[in-house]
Amino acid sequence: MEKPLFLIGSSQTRFGEHWDKSLRDLAREVVDGAIEHSPATALDIDMVIVANMIGEVASDQAHMGAMVASFLPHKPPAIRVEAACASGSVAIHTACALLESNRAQTILVIGAEKMTDATNDQIASALMGAADSEQDRPAGLTFPGIFGLVAQRYMHDYGLTRDQLSLVSAVHHRQALENPFAQFRMEVKPEAVSKSSPIADPLRLLDCSPISDGAAACILSTKYQSNFRVAASQLTTDTLSLADRPSLTSFSASKKAMEKALAEAAIDRDEISHVETHDCFSIAAVINMEDLGFANEGDGISIYRELYERPTMMGLQVNKSGGLKACGHPVAATGIKQFIDIAKQLKAAGTRYGLSHNFGGAGATCGLHILEHLQ
Amino acid sequence: MEKPLFLIGSSQTRFGEHWDKSLRDLAREVVDGAIEHSPATALDIDMVIVANMIGEVASDQAHMGAMVASFLPHKPPAIRVEAACASGSVAIHTACALLESNRAQTILVIGAEKMTDATNDQIASALMGAADSEQDRPAGLTFPGIFGLVAQRYMHDYGLTRDQLSLVSAVHHRQALENPFAQFRMEVKPEAVSKSSPIADPLRLLDCSPISDGAAACILSTKYQSNFRVAASQLTTDTLSLADRPSLTSFSASKKAMEKALAEAAIDRDEISHVETHDCFSIAAVINMEDLGFANEGDGISIYRELYERPTMMGLQVNKSGGLKACGHPVAATGIKQFIDIAKQLKAAGTRYGLSHNFGGAGATCGLHILEHLQ
Repeated sequence: MEKPLFLIGSSQTRFGEHWDKSLRDLAREVVDGAIEHSPATALDIDMVIVANMIGEVASDQAHMGAMVASFLPHKPPAIRVEAACASGSVAIHTACALLESNRAQTILVIGAEKMTDATNDQIASALMGAADSEQDRPAGLTFPGIFGLVAQRYMHDYGLTRDQLSLVSAVHHRQALENPFAQFRMEVKPEAVSKSSPIADPLRLLDCSPISDGAAACILSTKYQSNFRVAASQLTTDTLSLADRPSLTSFSASKKAMEKALAEAAIDRDEISHVETHDCFSIAAVINMEDLGFANEGDGISIYRELYERPTMMGLQVNKSGGLKACGHPVAATGIKQFIDIAKQLKAAGTRYGLSHNFGGAGATCGLHILEHLQ
Repeated sequence: MEKPLFLIGSSQTRFGEHWDKSLRDLAREVVDGAIEHSPATALDIDMVIVANMIGEVASDQAHMGAMVASFLPHKPPAIRVEAACASGSVAIHTACALLESNRAQTILVIGAEKMTDATNDQIASALMGAADSEQDRPAGLTFPGIFGLVAQRYMHDYGLTRDQLSLVSAVHHRQALENPFAQFRMEVKPEAVSKSSPIADPLRLLDCSPISDGAAACILSTKYQSNFRVAASQLTTDTLSLADRPSLTSFSASKKAMEKALAEAAIDRDEISHVETHDCFSIAAVINMEDLGFANEGDGISIYRELYERPTMMGLQVNKSGGLKACGHPVAATGIKQFIDIAKQLKAAGTRYGLSHNFGGAGATCGLHILEHLQ
């Protein structure tokens, strides 16, 4: 970080099916909420960054920067960014750079999606926009299909079993019981995951994050201070298509972002007490534990086994919010939700460093943030 | 500007109907071209900013940051931004801030659209995403309709006649004769504009910029220098819906951006020799001349009368490229094309300051840049 930069306010809607709210309604709710819960006033916001992926397809709405700026009395400059499911963290990264450039002192960052008004076909097609439209889509792939292939290869290479993989969603669902904003607050046993409907072999329904409506916002500032300092903001990229990668079982963008973020924050990995990681599919969570360096190659499931069997013994908390699986995944809101969840968790635990790890497509874009809780 | 920042390379495709090229082909062409025409190598690019509006709808492709980063051997971090027809200038603004933040030293900025593969209905609907989907679209408006209302009101308030308005496209077409990248290189007489097919009264076919394929790219750097320094980069926003504005005949975002840009560059308006302005419809060009302060309120047409009757006598050159009308308007590429055209024009004329003025929707987002030609 070029200068001290603070998270001074945040808000999120419950993630889920909001039949009575439009994309605009969801966005307005968190804009108002974030300002209300911060020391800044609306007029302090000197820039807006909006993350959105599905607006054009599902709500006939592009140009969402100006849409959100229109909520504020002074219509500050606004930018919409999109990097598929990494849109939220890319928005935070963009805001950090704008604050460091001195072009703004206080920035409202918001991610919003309205996904349940469109048909499943429309949403599946729109989400495939995150992959390579010339290489992946013509092969007939959808995202469950892509991560199904990843899981196949991972199981082949490392011997992970179907029943072991089921621990991931079981942990996420149990942890979501405590989160009032989660879409699914119900316990799910590992056996139920293994027996749920097949989606893309070996993945089953309960391995997959759902389609969700929701919004999340935060306010970042160099003018106002808080107990939450942004210690690192990193953005990395890999090939858009999985077909162009040397490995299907590791996402190099995550590895690179983690390495750079630890250097930027000047901390060791073991100083991190809380992680929110991108579990779009259960297999992704397993791989992420390895890419982020919390588990050895091929052994990511060990973290989830510990979390399942001895949660209170763990030094590292992973997806305490419930993750994408149980919280829901309104795609561009997710990266911002992860970031503000880390702040809540550090505050509750009284610990110092937390990490939010968000990716887009099959790890083609990775946005990673480290928050420091100042005590 | 926080630090000296230079335009060190650029490239564009011809704008028009590229039946034989995909969105990716167009993008790759200008990425290669911009690097080839700059002192930087591909490996010097430490960030990519991609402007695109229509990719999801017309090419099933979101996540275009990673798509473009995939062209480069080292896959640098990449962000896609969108602000409707202002996407290109918003991308340049984002790049300027990232360079000022020291997160990057050399950034590739690219705008690309592939619009002619989709049906006219799909494109008209996608472009309406730039307006307010809850207020404007349900009223049955399209963009020609919105600017038709603007023209109606302008003619009512200021007495502009249909035949006077026709001078705008006549000037743009004549100027495009010299531009090898323009979609329409043919002279169009004012009478032909007035007699062309009615589109949205009083606007006629030849008042409207076309649907186009095309891409443009530039490389901005703090590491490498050139004769073209970015003297100002401003981004402003207004209400998304025209219905929420006090006036239909002036775009406050343009006025505000111009004022801030002149202050940032620390120059007077009359030091500017060349302007590329956003003539999505002929009436917009008239209004822009007033909003940018080159003509008095209600008298914007006087600039075009001069350009039509005595082009060589004019101290101010406007849309010498042919503007959106004659060059074509692949929406997110336009703001970048305007910016690189200004550099070409300053070089050819041997003058010092030029302005590119790009807006999105009905002036809801305005991106404005001043380039200084160092001699």
